[in-house]
Amino acid sequence: MIRVGIIGASGYAGRELIRLLANHPNAEVVYAGSRTYVGESLGKVIPALRHLDLRFSEIDVKTIIQECDCLFTAVPHGGCMELAESVLAGGVKLIDLGTDFRFRDARIYEEWYGIPHTCPELSTKAVYGLCEIHRDEIKEASLVANPGCYPTSIILGLAPLLKQGYLDLASIVADSMSGVSGAGAKLGQMYHYPECTENLRAYGLITHRHRPEIEQELSLLAGHTAMVTFTPHLAPMTRGIHSTISGKLTVEVSERELLDLYQEFYADEYFVRVLVDEYPQTKAVYGTNFCDLTLRVDPRMNRVVVLSVIDNLGKGAAGQAIQNMNLMFGRPETEGLTATALLP
Amino acid sequence: MIRVGIIGASGYAGRELIRLLANHPNAEVVYAGSRTYVGESLGKVIPALRHLDLRFSEIDVKTIIQECDCLFTAVPHGGCMELAESVLAGGVKLIDLGTDFRFRDARIYEEWYGIPHTCPELSTKAVYGLCEIHRDEIKEASLVANPGCYPTSIILGLAPLLKQGYLDLASIVADSMSGVSGAGAKLGQMYHYPECTENLRAYGLITHRHRPEIEQELSLLAGHTAMVTFTPHLAPMTRGIHSTISGKLTVEVSERELLDLYQEFYADEYFVRVLVDEYPQTKAVYGTNFCDLTLRVDPRMNRVVVLSVIDNLGKGAAGQAIQNMNLMFGRPETEGLTATALLP
Amino acid sequence: MIRVGIIGASGYAGRELIRLLANHPNAEVVYAGSRTYVGESLGKVIPALRHLDLRFSEIDVKTIIQECDCLFTAVPHGGCMELAESVLAGGVKLIDLGTDFRFRDARIYEEWYGIPHTCPELSTKAVYGLCEIHRDEIKEASLVANPGCYPTSIILGLAPLLKQGYLDLASIVADSMSGVSGAGAKLGQMYHYPECTENLRAYGLITHRHRPEIEQELSLLAGHTAMVTFTPHLAPMTRGIHSTISGKLTVEVSERELLDLYQEFYADEYFVRVLVDEYPQTKAVYGTNFCDLTLRVDPRMNRVVVLSVIDNLGKGAAGQAIQNMNLMFGRPETEGLTATALLP
Amino acid sequence: MIRVGIIGASGYAGRELIRLLANHPNAEVVYAGSRTYVGESLGKVIPALRHLDLRFSEIDVKTIIQECDCLFTAVPHGGCMELAESVLAGGVKLIDLGTDFRFRDARIYEEWYGIPHTCPELSTKAVYGLCEIHRDEIKEASLVANPGCYPTSIILGLAPLLKQGYLDLASIVADSMSGVSGAGAKLGQMYHYPECTENLRAYGLITHRHRPEIEQELSLLAGHTAMVTFTPHLAPMTRGIHSTISGKLTVEVSERELLDLYQEFYADEYFVRVLVDEYPQTKAVYGTNFCDLTLRVDPRMNRVVVLSVIDNLGKGAAGQAIQNMNLMFGRPETEGLTATALLP
Repeated sequence: MIRVGIIGASGYAGRELIRLLANHPNAEVVYAGSRTYVGESLGKVIPALRHLDLRFSEIDVKTIIQECDCLFTAVPHGGCMELAESVLAGGVKLIDLGTDFRFRDARIYEEWYGIPHTCPELSTKAVYGLCEIHRDEIKEASLVANPGCYPTSIILGLAPLLKQGYLDLASIVADSMSGVSGAGAKLGQMYHYPECTENLRAYGLITHRHRPEIEQELSLLAGHTAMVTFTPHLAPMTRGIHSTISGKLTVEVSERELLDLYQEFYADEYFVRVLVDEYPQTKAVYGTNFCDLTLRVDPRMNRVVVLSVIDNLGKGAAGQAIQNMNLMFGRPETEGLTATALLP
Repeated sequence: MIRVGIIGASGYAGRELIRLLANHPNAEVVYAGSRTYVGESLGKVIPALRHLDLRFSEIDVKTIIQECDCLFTAVPHGGCMELAESVLAGGVKLIDLGTDFRFRDARIYEEWYGIPHTCPELSTKAVYGLCEIHRDEIKEASLVANPGCYPTSIILGLAPLLKQGYLDLASIVADSMSGVSGAGAKLGQMYHYPECTENLRAYGLITHRHRPEIEQELSLLAGHTAMVTFTPHLAPMTRGIHSTISGKLTVEVSERELLDLYQEFYADEYFVRVLVDEYPQTKAVYGTNFCDLTLRVDPRMNRVVVLSVIDNLGKGAAGQAIQNMNLMFGRPETEGLTATALLP
Repeated sequence: MIRVGIIGASGYAGRELIRLLANHPNAEVVYAGSRTYVGESLGKVIPALRHLDLRFSEIDVKTIIQECDCLFTAVPHGGCMELAESVLAGGVKLIDLGTDFRFRDARIYEEWYGIPHTCPELSTKAVYGLCEIHRDEIKEASLVANPGCYPTSIILGLAPLLKQGYLDLASIVADSMSGVSGAGAKLGQMYHYPECTENLRAYGLITHRHRPEIEQELSLLAGHTAMVTFTPHLAPMTRGIHSTISGKLTVEVSERELLDLYQEFYADEYFVRVLVDEYPQTKAVYGTNFCDLTLRVDPRMNRVVVLSVIDNLGKGAAGQAIQNMNLMFGRPETEGLTATALLP
Repeated sequence: MIRVGIIGASGYAGRELIRLLANHPNAEVVYAGSRTYVGESLGKVIPALRHLDLRFSEIDVKTIIQECDCLFTAVPHGGCMELAESVLAGGVKLIDLGTDFRFRDARIYEEWYGIPHTCPELSTKAVYGLCEIHRDEIKEASLVANPGCYPTSIILGLAPLLKQGYLDLASIVADSMSGVSGAGAKLGQMYHYPECTENLRAYGLITHRHRPEIEQELSLLAGHTAMVTFTPHLAPMTRGIHSTISGKLTVEVSERELLDLYQEFYADEYFVRVLVDEYPQTKAVYGTNFCDLTLRVDPRMNRVVVLSVIDNLGKGAAGQAIQNMNLMFGRPETEGLTATALLP
């Protein structure tokens, strides 16, 4: 039984970790650290968890080391850096759902997040936890940077094309629509029900912080510098990301051949479902760790359009974090993650 | 391993059975009967189930008897009666999510559903599968009539008061708000997204078919004839029932005493959570088998208001059906049903 | 042209006033007072109003008296009392969308709102602005207390029965479901999109502040003290109130006779539509000043169930406020208020 | 007073025409033709229109010619062609909200819609009714083809760039998200509330029928053949289209210069609001005839991203149709169309 600690358990990614781990046969949440809710029962703060018997504790490294085999941090940027070295030194494996260790080059982090990185050497050791791409390194890792939600959908959507060298790396356009839970539990006018429902808008054009993360991984896959024009949108729904990604093909290749390529590339991946005759929809992955994919080709401009959907709290956050934990602890990769989507 | 068959697997209650049973450690869906989709894979019809390996079969009693220990029927009224006797004769336990066996007196069925009951003697043997109320009979039953969604929320909401004789049986008013999945997968103008979202309306006043079912069970609990003015409403959400039930108290009793009564009454019930300081909300039971309850007293008229929420597809249909199966097969009652609500 | 001022223009009722008055042929918003946004253009704060040419001003009585014929206040309780006397003294007619002047007896205000009433004598002069009930007094009034949203739906729903003396005044139960805009533009966890959508809950049982307002007016209509067990609910939609109101009839009267009574009572009312064969739905009054009504009788207990729907920001706030203004200024009552609902 | 007839009044575009025209000071709906509802009152079919006094009539050209100055057809493709010649011959001006006359070359129509065009010569006379682009021709026209909703948002979004010759015509990618009312009142599994809410999906990739319409108009604006990779999406909301359009710039030009270009281009257009510091959102145009626009530049690839939002039933259908009518009848262009968005 893996003894699990969570910091940031009252946030949405944290709640989803608890929800998923409650049904994991070989992991148990034994510690939930919080700044705000110390001493209160989880169920008081999170009504859906009323039947669970767990209280929020103070954030204390000594306790974590004593009680946990694995720590998840789901806190704003900067929050994991503070603890990482001491927690790792105590023999606890660490999975950060935040952004502190997502960049191989800590200077990119500093540029985009505007604060100094206090343990850049750890950055170089951290593994980017996109399981389907970096599985072998994750198995050996003690520090994993869990990917962002948008990057997960886009990287999985383009990986086969990039590995094959089929994509013009200056032509990529990614328009992603996200459910509102992606913005977290923090209140904001944009997320106030009467102004958010029946409304759709783009935000963060050109300079969204997920852009360098996407480009780092696309470049790694391609072996060359890739750039993406990335436009995130807020859609009136709770969960789900739908990424619509297009780019120019560098070779003459048919839609059918590309679909075959994708099916082959992901043939052994339980969590990636390549669709052929259908289009993906976010509700078919609601509450799950799946990524549904398909693509079409516009032969006139030799441009491919890839559609990729995930649950931003599932494969885009907590689900993938548990998938990483399973890999790091030698458990079957799908353990605790086989739930089916709520549709309806 | 309980071998499970489902008829009506493409409907919403049927899909929810498959979703829940996919994570039941001691049951397996081996048969999915359908009139419409014979030969097709489940995943083709139900996108959320793409990763499951199951095809729709013809509805054939011989096959059912051979392959199944337990059959769930989730079909329109009349559909279970046709099969019940032969299926039961073959030694298969039968749980009907429809209405064919919910009335101890088949004449009430005939009056409200407008068709002759073809096996009224089975009706007298069938057990009304509200587990918290009829647990002992369910354990011995081979035919269980799974309760309707509205009745479940209202009966659980009033049981402690009725058992105690505290309620004026001519004073009960139940206003219930249901999510749209309660109306099933069948299309209708009322459920067309642009006319259904951001809209709330009542329907079926006074004469909704769940009324006699509610009254049968409330009367049994009270030991006298109880009547209810029942108004169902369609609310713009997928899942959830919120029942707001009021009635005049026959005794002087404080809110605190009644809350104590409820907590005691449901003390050993995993799936009923009595709230004291909070109000229930439908999303806190989304996708689960829980029923959340509380009550308040208006001392001026000595009237009690009970609030009761369930997921209409969970405790209101498929969840409770599996709870019944667990009881009938001697399994732990909560097996496969411990998932936590998706909130958010 | 009526020169209109609004205080609280950035709130939802205030925005709706501006939206509606922008199409009023004989009124013009010339002044928008705000504490927060002085100097900013309305369109900056309220994106829907981008094309209007108006800026927020300081709240200043002298300016109001100089520039306005009519002032609407749409501010938290206590906010109108501060200005009322001086504004009225300056010859400006005043319509308060808040609660400061809704009670004929200022002591009830003080008891329920917990602050002293600073001008109780004005309270006795103020007219409760439910136009269909108090039309004649409104025409003569210089201070109108615009009714609350729940009270409007419930009072219109019961007026014919109460006038006729048909209702047992101790038997009334009102379950009302409101859209989220009823809670205003102020952020709150309950209104955070991911926790509000697909969710329904009751709140404020027994002691909601609209109760004494409802009971004051029902008692006036009946000529005797009426009490109501009132349960408000938050429904996942932006606009709309659906009140489901039941009570015991004191006479033997058929459903048909009661429907006739209602049709006759409201025969000359443009904004009240009595339905016979249909149920009302909130989206059919979306963005309008209509109230749609119907009723059914449960003959077994001789109980009537009345259904009443309004748009909480329309007939429940800004629409009715403008209807009041029209009456106070001798304009046609429907002027500027004839827009049709957005459905879809 | 313009006497207006509508065929297809029970569809969503038809209802919106009636809703808008009910507040037009110089037009009156005198005729509503229908195949399905002859003799029934509008309010029976369309609850929001209960207070209007109008009945559905048979579709009869003679009646139309006698009673109407202007006819709107809002019917499936092929439905306008049948009537066009005789209606026009009778001196009635015709505005088709469908697709029969959107293509200058009727062969494109035949290729994409799969039926023969029965009056290709009328096609050449018809004017494509995008008012901001073809205003002068519309004023002289007796037959106007009202543009599709997606094309309207995309063409207005790109017009200034194309006129200027700033865009690489082979680089255009348009990802559009539409509310569900865009699919009409016809039922479909995709639009069934429980499967549509909280869900987002693409559809009709590469070959959506709006593509040739978009390309016809973009090419006209550019003076050269333009091609677009167009991906429509269904978003869980009733109204609104958000188009996110990107393309490579052919010149070195700053974001600021392009915003200036847009502001100048649309300086005299009441219905086009160019935003500088904000992003457009669909709810800010809800129920209106506005188009809100902005753009950003990704300087690394010299790619521009344009954001364009409209109400698909407003500027995308009925609103623009009335704008066309105003132009054709010499009325002020904004008459009857100045309503402000419902937000919230």
